[in-house]
Amino acid sequence: MRATFMYAAGDVRVETVPDPVIQHPTDAIVRVVRACVCGSDLHRYHSMPASGTGDPMGHELVGVVEETGSDVRSVRTGDFVVAPFAFQDNTCVFCREGFQTSCVHGGWYGSPRTGGLQAELARIPLADGSLVVVPDTDPTTADPSLLASLLALSDVYLTGYHAAHMGRVAPGRTVTVIGDGAVGLSAVLASRRLGAERIVLMGRHTDRTDLGRAWGATDVVAARGQDGIAQVMELTGGEGSHVVIEAVGLMPAYEQAYGIVRPGGVISRVGVPQYEDAPVGFGSLFGKNATLTGGPAPVRAYLEAGIADVLAGEIAPGRVFDRELPLAQAAEAYRLMSTREALKVALRP
Amino acid sequence: MRATFMYAAGDVRVETVPDPVIQHPTDAIVRVVRACVCGSDLHRYHSMPASGTGDPMGHELVGVVEETGSDVRSVRTGDFVVAPFAFQDNTCVFCREGFQTSCVHGGWYGSPRTGGLQAELARIPLADGSLVVVPDTDPTTADPSLLASLLALSDVYLTGYHAAHMGRVAPGRTVTVIGDGAVGLSAVLASRRLGAERIVLMGRHTDRTDLGRAWGATDVVAARGQDGIAQVMELTGGEGSHVVIEAVGLMPAYEQAYGIVRPGGVISRVGVPQYEDAPVGFGSLFGKNATLTGGPAPVRAYLEAGIADVLAGEIAPGRVFDRELPLAQAAEAYRLMSTREALKVALRP
Repeated sequence: MRATFMYAAGDVRVETVPDPVIQHPTDAIVRVVRACVCGSDLHRYHSMPASGTGDPMGHELVGVVEETGSDVRSVRTGDFVVAPFAFQDNTCVFCREGFQTSCVHGGWYGSPRTGGLQAELARIPLADGSLVVVPDTDPTTADPSLLASLLALSDVYLTGYHAAHMGRVAPGRTVTVIGDGAVGLSAVLASRRLGAERIVLMGRHTDRTDLGRAWGATDVVAARGQDGIAQVMELTGGEGSHVVIEAVGLMPAYEQAYGIVRPGGVISRVGVPQYEDAPVGFGSLFGKNATLTGGPAPVRAYLEAGIADVLAGEIAPGRVFDRELPLAQAAEAYRLMSTREALKVALRP
Repeated sequence: MRATFMYAAGDVRVETVPDPVIQHPTDAIVRVVRACVCGSDLHRYHSMPASGTGDPMGHELVGVVEETGSDVRSVRTGDFVVAPFAFQDNTCVFCREGFQTSCVHGGWYGSPRTGGLQAELARIPLADGSLVVVPDTDPTTADPSLLASLLALSDVYLTGYHAAHMGRVAPGRTVTVIGDGAVGLSAVLASRRLGAERIVLMGRHTDRTDLGRAWGATDVVAARGQDGIAQVMELTGGEGSHVVIEAVGLMPAYEQAYGIVRPGGVISRVGVPQYEDAPVGFGSLFGKNATLTGGPAPVRAYLEAGIADVLAGEIAPGRVFDRELPLAQAAEAYRLMSTREALKVALRP
């Protein structure tokens, strides 16, 4: 079968590899219906040192269960499923507390031998804890937009949802979302679902911020840095934003975040930080009792509810996918996202 | 009257200055019954560059209203009051949201001319928003331990309470308090009041940790750094602490905090950070969805309830005061706290 590997910054290849096989009785093999490229993959696409072997790529899919290990109980061959971007047993103490990305038995997908989820087939460890069945849906006849929205639950939408949830978005709150990428736009949609009164979207790409407006952004600020901070402060009557969702992961976005967060407010980060140290002292967070939260989204915690919302037509988070390419063109998908010609690209094996 | 000034690290003097007078119709003049030295004063006591004029010292008091400005309505001459460690109007948008230390009209006490609250008399701006009356209590006949407990509400106990509140301490939670100073011990007491199931106190001074045990600490860890982290992780079955209260303000304490916080847990800081940058990336906070919160305690938000609890005998936070000296010996009070001969020293004008 074919799977996607990255060999260096800018060097993505789709190669023929052995089919993945059941290795543990808790595994399942899933035939991919749609996979996609993540904004977090782009960090490596920009900076990965050359590697002789190639790193397996992809951590998002919807697909059909092809085979299950002998201990798997909750899914069976033929089920149409969504895979969260990390696997988990969904029973350990941290899973029970709603932080499945810290599952004591969990981890990330991918094998140097058989690839990740940007592939035709994928091995999903701990299938009972990870895969969630999409009821009453036949992927061979489903509307492409429905497939896209279900695929968005694998990571991007529920990452945006996690940001809003951790930021304690609620009715009456002003939320500012920094970043008009697919996660930022998803955070706008999730904030609206959670009742935010006002949603300011900071982004410079009109086609993207237009989707943000369609999803509930009440204001768009294209400026960055001190100008961007000044504009958000003016929009909020000098008070700042109750919740700031930082969906970029770079230091300038973090600096904007503490510049606009209101006293007692929350900065919720879901862009994987490309820095380790950052200002947290009296002049940034402490002096105004600002809270910093966020991390890798425990998508699994929100997945059943997300599937129900998508099937009910209440949300259509798949609108972040503005391109779909055959799996064989995965390299082009990376290029399109890297140059911002595409917001998010789905891959069809 | 006499007031306390700091001229340089280690150089504290009590001097005769003019009495403070009403400057604005919203001011009150309060005759100090008890003031005290704060752990945050010690940072300056250790590092203040020499100054020709002297900085006014003190931000905690209980006292009797001596005079009020023409606009003051909620307190009157003769009232026995507690002053929060900062003043506020208690009506602005941030005050209404419970973050009075960010009051748009608020600020810190002290005048180079008439001193701070370690004095015989003090001018309290925005008296209606700041001072809270202690009902049915005559300070001239009150038990000294009651005076001490009311004085503790001016800052130290309610700062510990703020740490626990922001950390979302609740029944069933494991809380670790880093620091056995007066704020850390207060955070132990507050965590117990909020129903914490298990309270680990990290501190090395047995006389202090004994008070911590009396106030509800279930475990004491004297080790620091990696050893301290390892011991707390062992005590928590490898899981870490739901809430970590950092009541020191120095980087090693911060490093301990992110070492022991559980996935999805909260680090709540109330020690004024003596650093600006700190680790917040994947390897410290982000990877495990840890939340960082805390800041200057909005004591005013908690003051009525705190006074009621003290008068009802439900808490006796004044036990952190292990010494009381005449105001004239303020320099000795600083020395005793700096050398850790005293936990917290009350000053009696």
